[in-house]
Amino acid sequence: MIILGIDPGSRITGYGLVARQQGKLVYVASGCVRLSTDALPERLSQIFSSVGEIIRQYAPEQFAIEQVFMAKNPDSALKLGQARGAAIVAATQASLPVAEYSARQIKQAVVGKGGADKTQVQHMVKHLLSLPGTPQADAADALAVALCHAHTEQSLIKLAGQARKTVRRRLR
Amino acid sequence: MIILGIDPGSRITGYGLVARQQGKLVYVASGCVRLSTDALPERLSQIFSSVGEIIRQYAPEQFAIEQVFMAKNPDSALKLGQARGAAIVAATQASLPVAEYSARQIKQAVVGKGGADKTQVQHMVKHLLSLPGTPQADAADALAVALCHAHTEQSLIKLAGQARKTVRRRLR
Repeated sequence: MIILGIDPGSRITGYGLVARQQGKLVYVASGCVRLSTDALPERLSQIFSSVGEIIRQYAPEQFAIEQVFMAKNPDSALKLGQARGAAIVAATQASLPVAEYSARQIKQAVVGKGGADKTQVQHMVKHLLSLPGTPQADAADALAVALCHAHTEQSLIKLAGQARKTVRRRLR
Repeated sequence: MIILGIDPGSRITGYGLVARQQGKLVYVASGCVRLSTDALPERLSQIFSSVGEIIRQYAPEQFAIEQVFMAKNPDSALKLGQARGAAIVAATQASLPVAEYSARQIKQAVVGKGGADKTQVQHMVKHLLSLPGTPQADAADALAVALCHAHTEQSLIKLAGQARKTVRRRLR
């Protein structure tokens, strides 16, 4: 199962794909879409098309994106919102389920502490996926949200398994 | 030529279509898309699909949307941004040119003063398009941005015409 993580931004949108193979998480691809124009409609169109193209190329079955709770200021929140809107619509158009995680949840899942900084996230992404080099910051963030989704899903499956075992035990 | 105006929102997205017929602006259609779900991906998907459907149904040649300069707070700016992103991407996917106008420009074009209130906008939209009743607030805002675009376009055409005349006069 392939998971696509997206880190949207008004200038650069990072993407990262990880797959679960025999219970292990492996790196598939990552990179970033640098928006080449200043015109808003074209920028949003580039995000929508690029995310759509990544979906067609790698056929992920899950989509994860960072949830934004506290944006710095109204202007940057609006720009970020527009970029998120374009990316999320690309996922829903491909009928992908969309999962959202807070920055705290992502850092907790990847680094082990919610207050980790960007460098720690990059380092742990490199380590967890056995990458030969450190991924670019936006690509690392996108891989981190994909890893967070994979961990959360796996924990839920484990929990569900334990719940089933408990039920079975009780039934005996 | 049909112009589609959109007033995006995280709960309700208004739309309004006006056409230029023999130099006169006439009403084509208007309404609002009420988002029926609380889940963000589905909400954005509804905006994208609804705007796409309106474009397929009425085949507008121009798309106009309110430009947001000063959002109230980061949270509402993010929500508005996401809705705007989904609506704009629907337009760019249909290869429609996207025009943006500030609230001030829209009120100036429709009411004649940049500081006009919502009721004045509704009243003037009703009057300018000879509507039998007052349109719903979000639909009125969407018709207002379409009217603003039509006026601006027409003014530019007039200006271009005058510029040509001036050149001709100078050439004599």
